[in-house]
Amino acid sequence: MNVVAFGGGHGLAASLRALRRCQGDLDLNITAVVTVGDDGGSSGRLRAERGALPPGDLRQALAALSAPDSASTADLFQHRFRPPGPLTGHTVGNLVLLGLMELLGDPVTALDHAAAMVGAAGRVLPMSCEPLGIEAEVQGADPSVPDDVLTVRGQHAVAVTRGRVLSVRLTPVEAVACPDAVAAIAEADWLIFGPGSWYTSVIPHLLMPGLAAAIVASPARRLVTLNLAEEKETLGLSVAGHLAALRWYLPELKIDTVIADEKAVGDPEPVRHAAESLGARLTLAPVAMSDGSARHDPAALGAALVPVLGAGR
Amino acid sequence: MNVVAFGGGHGLAASLRALRRCQGDLDLNITAVVTVGDDGGSSGRLRAERGALPPGDLRQALAALSAPDSASTADLFQHRFRPPGPLTGHTVGNLVLLGLMELLGDPVTALDHAAAMVGAAGRVLPMSCEPLGIEAEVQGADPSVPDDVLTVRGQHAVAVTRGRVLSVRLTPVEAVACPDAVAAIAEADWLIFGPGSWYTSVIPHLLMPGLAAAIVASPARRLVTLNLAEEKETLGLSVAGHLAALRWYLPELKIDTVIADEKAVGDPEPVRHAAESLGARLTLAPVAMSDGSARHDPAALGAALVPVLGAGR
Repeated sequence: MNVVAFGGGHGLAASLRALRRCQGDLDLNITAVVTVGDDGGSSGRLRAERGALPPGDLRQALAALSAPDSASTADLFQHRFRPPGPLTGHTVGNLVLLGLMELLGDPVTALDHAAAMVGAAGRVLPMSCEPLGIEAEVQGADPSVPDDVLTVRGQHAVAVTRGRVLSVRLTPVEAVACPDAVAAIAEADWLIFGPGSWYTSVIPHLLMPGLAAAIVASPARRLVTLNLAEEKETLGLSVAGHLAALRWYLPELKIDTVIADEKAVGDPEPVRHAAESLGARLTLAPVAMSDGSARHDPAALGAALVPVLGAGR
Repeated sequence: MNVVAFGGGHGLAASLRALRRCQGDLDLNITAVVTVGDDGGSSGRLRAERGALPPGDLRQALAALSAPDSASTADLFQHRFRPPGPLTGHTVGNLVLLGLMELLGDPVTALDHAAAMVGAAGRVLPMSCEPLGIEAEVQGADPSVPDDVLTVRGQHAVAVTRGRVLSVRLTPVEAVACPDAVAAIAEADWLIFGPGSWYTSVIPHLLMPGLAAAIVASPARRLVTLNLAEEKETLGLSVAGHLAALRWYLPELKIDTVIADEKAVGDPEPVRHAAESLGARLTLAPVAMSDGSARHDPAALGAALVPVLGAGR
């Protein structure tokens, strides 16, 4: 069964860790399609200094898919240099991906090689082979003029904005979707969106025309995994509002299943209603870590995914 | 058959490439014991900024031992970042080794992991698990006072000195030999010295008491591969003088075989005499690259090594 998971950062990593745990039960062929809009931290520096495709989210996806017997290499990829010196803040994996992309000249070939290095249980692809920008119209981005709507530029700035995000868009508008990602979407049995930073990791996939068209045209069923907590960028956006936002940006998008944590979702009725308006059934399951942190438990999310993904059409 | 090759940089890499080619004929178990005195370039920066064991010579040894089917990962290790930006001049492999050493806490474990990553046909060990310094007494280091003897500090400074090296020493004097290297020497059938920068890559192994004692005590036979051309640090040192220098620094050192290129050696008689004074036979063979460059041809050096290493005692 071919599964394509969309996202970036920690949210996508949680989804991939859960999918890796389903692989034995479901014979999954996993492809991650990853945002490449990051302009903060190590990725942002490599992007600014060397024009690199920001590697951080790609690296996190590779580590999430890594085989247990490649743990040392996956740990190496995730190892972050501490102070002092100019390497501070870079992870080894970001530098490896940068080197592979420079050496091999093509991000997809580089990522396939890196996937082999960590024994990844699937492919990791960028949504585009060129770095992308994210911009948002934000009300109250400047707290001194709380009613004003300002344009906030850059994924990092949008993710940490103190205002209310009204709309997001990608730059450049002519950016092209990664052909291997488009092909994977066409051949998918399931497309999986979220969890993750809604405006800067999940919705960007719906904003690129080539990717959005592939998503709409795919014969795959579609699943949304909702977040466990608000983030800065979605402050004030209800859980149901997360689903409405998907529809706002891609009105043709139909969803088959929405998975939410039964505790985190609060009153399920508005969420059930929002899911149904997208054509989806809401599945409530205990998918959060039992320690109370707002993170998905890979084993619990995997257990919730198995009956959903494995159900006949 | 257990073979230990000593050196650093390009010279050791040439020796290891040749040994890798002999592996099928001779069932070789190869261990490289590598100098860790480098303070120039990428290694020097990582050492100065982060206190790292200088990784460059270790990386070159790993790449030389890498399996053909791991070519992409070995190429990745050797990929050097070009300008612009603060990564300029670093190789990916140096950063990977730095990360592994920080992550795993022990250079030997880190090198064994890196060896697996490139499918190395042997082990690469540092001569010491701590960075070393190299100092030399150099006559004419300052050309304005050509007769004066000055102390030149640092491997890089010694390697490029414009004066005549009178003596070299390691710092700190209490540095300890890598225990795994000492063990490999004790179990070796052959110890191989050179080619390489004589004062900064070959002789340092004879200067560390623990390593020198292991070399003298080893039941192994010993082979010296001579250089093809003078380097700055050995300007004015004859080919025979290279052999005499080994004896000067470790008088107990006995050698069984000296391999020299039949063209590069010039008049073989003084070299033969110097070899015999160490107890060695001189073997002349065409081991240089056929393009006229002063580099050993791995296939030709391998062909010269097979009958020497394979000969009965």
